[in-house]
Amino acid sequence: MTEKTALTPKTHTTPPAAFSHGVRKGNILQVAGQVGFLPAEDGKPPTPAGPTLAEQTLQTLANVKAILEEGGASWDDAMMIRVYLTDVDHFAEMNEMYDAYFEEQGLTQPPAARTTVYVGLPKGLLIEIDALAVLD
Amino acid sequence: MTEKTALTPKTHTTPPAAFSHGVRKGNILQVAGQVGFLPAEDGKPPTPAGPTLAEQTLQTLANVKAILEEGGASWDDAMMIRVYLTDVDHFAEMNEMYDAYFEEQGLTQPPAARTTVYVGLPKGLLIEIDALAVLD
Amino acid sequence: MTEKTALTPKTHTTPPAAFSHGVRKGNILQVAGQVGFLPAEDGKPPTPAGPTLAEQTLQTLANVKAILEEGGASWDDAMMIRVYLTDVDHFAEMNEMYDAYFEEQGLTQPPAARTTVYVGLPKGLLIEIDALAVLD
Repeated sequence: MTEKTALTPKTHTTPPAAFSHGVRKGNILQVAGQVGFLPAEDGKPPTPAGPTLAEQTLQTLANVKAILEEGGASWDDAMMIRVYLTDVDHFAEMNEMYDAYFEEQGLTQPPAARTTVYVGLPKGLLIEIDALAVLD
Repeated sequence: MTEKTALTPKTHTTPPAAFSHGVRKGNILQVAGQVGFLPAEDGKPPTPAGPTLAEQTLQTLANVKAILEEGGASWDDAMMIRVYLTDVDHFAEMNEMYDAYFEEQGLTQPPAARTTVYVGLPKGLLIEIDALAVLD
Repeated sequence: MTEKTALTPKTHTTPPAAFSHGVRKGNILQVAGQVGFLPAEDGKPPTPAGPTLAEQTLQTLANVKAILEEGGASWDDAMMIRVYLTDVDHFAEMNEMYDAYFEEQGLTQPPAARTTVYVGLPKGLLIEIDALAVLD
């Protein structure tokens, strides 16, 4: 039997319901929808990195990465990245941040596929990202 | 060659187009977007379990579960659950239902990852859920 | 080590950011969100097949198919197809196109699972589709 492991980086706030920030089973790793919350602090409610798309995009990507790494994966293993924005006008700026971020990460394999759609998100949140990874 | 099997619980209404309620191929099982329709009755159009979020949430989870089980899986195998709501104000109530439901299910493995976003759905439907599972 | 391969059909426009139109790793193939852009032409910006849902739906499905085939897969390998529409009133027409399209494709295995939700998309685009496939 292959075990399913919950991936819970120490930096992450407690999920608001009965779900895992990430799970890995065999070579499949799924990251739950992450938002731009700063690393958790005891006794403080989840707090976004800032009000701007730029701040939230970088923090969200860092939060996804922490879960990939908790499961022994890296961005190189990411197959699909789903980006949820709240405003079509944020697409160009998000892409700029996204490109700069991944250039810095120094991928050694092709970048993941991606879908970006525009949805509603809780007040104050401008971006949410989840990811599917396949490990070696 | 690994076969792809359609998963069609007897309780389910016919899909409105050329898609399967669920498919399994090897150890991967994908559940299509489910809504809160009651078990199908001959000659009756698909009917939601009720107008409320609570009624629809529980029926939708039951519909997802039926497909997992049709494919030889259980909630313990679920890696990712995608929840689509129509109203950010429904988040807290959906989470309450979700937590109570999964507590009752008696999971023996960590809960699946999850993403919740707010989208449009056909009139009268307040929630849609799909799921990806990896079997042993 | 299993390699991740980028799938880039010659007909496709360059992605607007650091993502792949599709990736394959082992037996998992993920197609990025496709829209109804016509085959790329040097020096021309990406151009939708037309303003109508019918035109865009068929072109989008063709674009997804090209990526599946670039990765050695076919519609028969598709496990999940995610359809993003902008208007609930487009559901019936999309389904008609979808059914007719897949009847023509002559699937030899059950159709993929599917989720359809209603979101915002960039101006002029009425449909976006992505897909997950599992190969033999």
